[in-house]
Amino acid sequence: MVKIAILGYGTVGSGVVEVLETNGASINKRAGKNIEIKYVLDLKDFPGESVEKLIVHDVDIIMNDPEIKIVVEVMGGVEPAFTFVKKALENGKSVVTSNKELVAKHGAQLLAMAKEKKLNFLFEASVGGGIPIIRPLNQSLTADEITQITGILNGTTNYILTKMAREGLEFDAVLKEAQEKGYAERNPDADIKGFDSCRKIAILTSLAFGSQVDYEDIYTEGITNITDRDFKYAEKMNCAIKLLASSKMIDDVVYAMVAPFMISESHPLYSVNDVLNGIYINGNVIGDVMFFGAGAGKLPTASAVVTDVVDCAKHLGTNIMSLWSTNKRELGDISNSKKKFFIRVEGTVSDKLAEVKAAFGDVEVILVDGITDEFAVVTEEISEKAYEQGSKKIVGIINRIRIEK
Amino acid sequence: MVKIAILGYGTVGSGVVEVLETNGASINKRAGKNIEIKYVLDLKDFPGESVEKLIVHDVDIIMNDPEIKIVVEVMGGVEPAFTFVKKALENGKSVVTSNKELVAKHGAQLLAMAKEKKLNFLFEASVGGGIPIIRPLNQSLTADEITQITGILNGTTNYILTKMAREGLEFDAVLKEAQEKGYAERNPDADIKGFDSCRKIAILTSLAFGSQVDYEDIYTEGITNITDRDFKYAEKMNCAIKLLASSKMIDDVVYAMVAPFMISESHPLYSVNDVLNGIYINGNVIGDVMFFGAGAGKLPTASAVVTDVVDCAKHLGTNIMSLWSTNKRELGDISNSKKKFFIRVEGTVSDKLAEVKAAFGDVEVILVDGITDEFAVVTEEISEKAYEQGSKKIVGIINRIRIEK
Repeated sequence: MVKIAILGYGTVGSGVVEVLETNGASINKRAGKNIEIKYVLDLKDFPGESVEKLIVHDVDIIMNDPEIKIVVEVMGGVEPAFTFVKKALENGKSVVTSNKELVAKHGAQLLAMAKEKKLNFLFEASVGGGIPIIRPLNQSLTADEITQITGILNGTTNYILTKMAREGLEFDAVLKEAQEKGYAERNPDADIKGFDSCRKIAILTSLAFGSQVDYEDIYTEGITNITDRDFKYAEKMNCAIKLLASSKMIDDVVYAMVAPFMISESHPLYSVNDVLNGIYINGNVIGDVMFFGAGAGKLPTASAVVTDVVDCAKHLGTNIMSLWSTNKRELGDISNSKKKFFIRVEGTVSDKLAEVKAAFGDVEVILVDGITDEFAVVTEEISEKAYEQGSKKIVGIINRIRIEK
Repeated sequence: MVKIAILGYGTVGSGVVEVLETNGASINKRAGKNIEIKYVLDLKDFPGESVEKLIVHDVDIIMNDPEIKIVVEVMGGVEPAFTFVKKALENGKSVVTSNKELVAKHGAQLLAMAKEKKLNFLFEASVGGGIPIIRPLNQSLTADEITQITGILNGTTNYILTKMAREGLEFDAVLKEAQEKGYAERNPDADIKGFDSCRKIAILTSLAFGSQVDYEDIYTEGITNITDRDFKYAEKMNCAIKLLASSKMIDDVVYAMVAPFMISESHPLYSVNDVLNGIYINGNVIGDVMFFGAGAGKLPTASAVVTDVVDCAKHLGTNIMSLWSTNKRELGDISNSKKKFFIRVEGTVSDKLAEVKAAFGDVEVILVDGITDEFAVVTEEISEKAYEQGSKKIVGIINRIRIEK
């Protein structure tokens, strides 16, 4: 018997309770012991619900109970989660969390604390919801040097971009509908401005390359500038527009970035649509592998949390997770990184093309039937810096989207 | 320091040596100790190659050396691999294998032996080459009841089918080219008749559902009856033709099958092309997850083998792998399982359609420009048995392919 406590009875917390109820028998068999929820910490009482008898309001009841071996933190946000998780580890309890803000900010420190005390700090659910990605990175790709991680890591923005592509709608209209359906939050900034993807790629990058990547250092651009016209060009180019979070190791330097990209049909993430997430990894011997599935949602996320609880229960007294060192990794300067750019320009080809070529070098012109007041070009591979310098020479650039090979 | 021995210096064996040389530093760091190859068993001497000094011809040198803690079996085939692996486990050595025939036939017994002796028997490379699938099934999906596994598990047949689809070529011509390129063996039966996929789905099914599935019990159909005309219809129907290996749990009964299927664009395996493998899993709480990557090849397969070596090295003295019980699982009778069938019939719609409808019920007619001596239909969902009975009533059925939703 292993007794656990859950901090927070929101969407994920109630999902964890549901998963442990639904699949309890097989979960206990796999853990090799029975897992029992002793406490659920929440501000509310949930009168009449079956969880009512487990509810406590004082976190110290959990922290001071030596029977509790595993604490599940599913509150979200850095504080008070960080204080509670530290206290749990100090008091000899392993911790499972789905909290990407916490892991991105303090993961290295919490992993080191857990290791020192022969406990575990696991966070499979913090990236990719139910998709197994943290554990494969930690345990399955150990023969490889990772050279690239590129993912669609945010379901809300992927839903919005998929809907815009399919139905030709404007961003604001689709966002409103996503909010009504519960796919986007009332304050959608964390998703649509790319912050959520940024924290997730910071976690994956830190883990893959073994040292702390501060998410504040990652160039991050959201999807708020993408319009229905961009999709008209994308369709003409047989491309999808996706919010990609990526990190690449080039000559021992890691370059990381979150931004919308145009990707062609041959790209492995091209057909990852709706609220799905996809994560593509390249290793120097394994080549390409890809994982995809539901990147969020109550039950998939809870499934990942419970998987970590099972691993903690199987490994009481043994630390199993790789470390990433607390040493900060300086990221490479992306202004030197090269790619093709898709650029929309006001005016006509005959008036403007010479000017565009003078600024960006050779380009391919893209025209869409029915659009006459602007045109688009695709550059050769140029650096971010070359794009910035070129863009200052042109009046009337409407938008630019990077193109991923 | 952990000393290991490799049985067999063929494609995979030499790949394992190469991966340990290339990524030795990071592999040793992840294993927490240095991994050193002490012996390589092979019939040949490899004079002048760096492996020469490691070569032994007598397996007992390895079996009787107490320094050897991990034996890597990459010879293939059931014997003498089975005898060697049993002896290694009896002599207190953990075993890593890429040998699907061995695992499908004797996996349950070897897992039980390893567990009893607190050793490990690991076989990530036996299914899906480099794609992490055994470890995720064993360690990442522990919160779920698996309800379905469907995979493209054989790279050779996927290459052939992709090439036929793209270039409109006949099976024999593509097979010959694949043999010339080294993508298909001189005796291609194990691949093209579906036997390889059958062993792999037997392993995944045994592991997912926890008891021995005998591969001889799995209905297996290869791709040798697929012709260029089938692809003309598939194109008209916006479908791909893929060799799928699948097992599904329905009302506590497992149904397993290997056969070519038509799948539509919305199917998660639709865009898994060329020599790639893809494995799609459905769990009752996680929903759908998919894994894809290189399903074969020297280095991807070796990467998976070395990952298992690292896990063995980290867990000397501790058994980590789930068991599947040696109790045989009786599979459900597929003759009652229902699906739509694509059926090609000699003659014309006006002559034959009434007869076809009398045999199979309501059907949709599919016509392809330029094909006049035959036509095709798609049935409603009917059972395998109903198809068999109906097909006896029609003279001139050219081919039939199942359709996966």
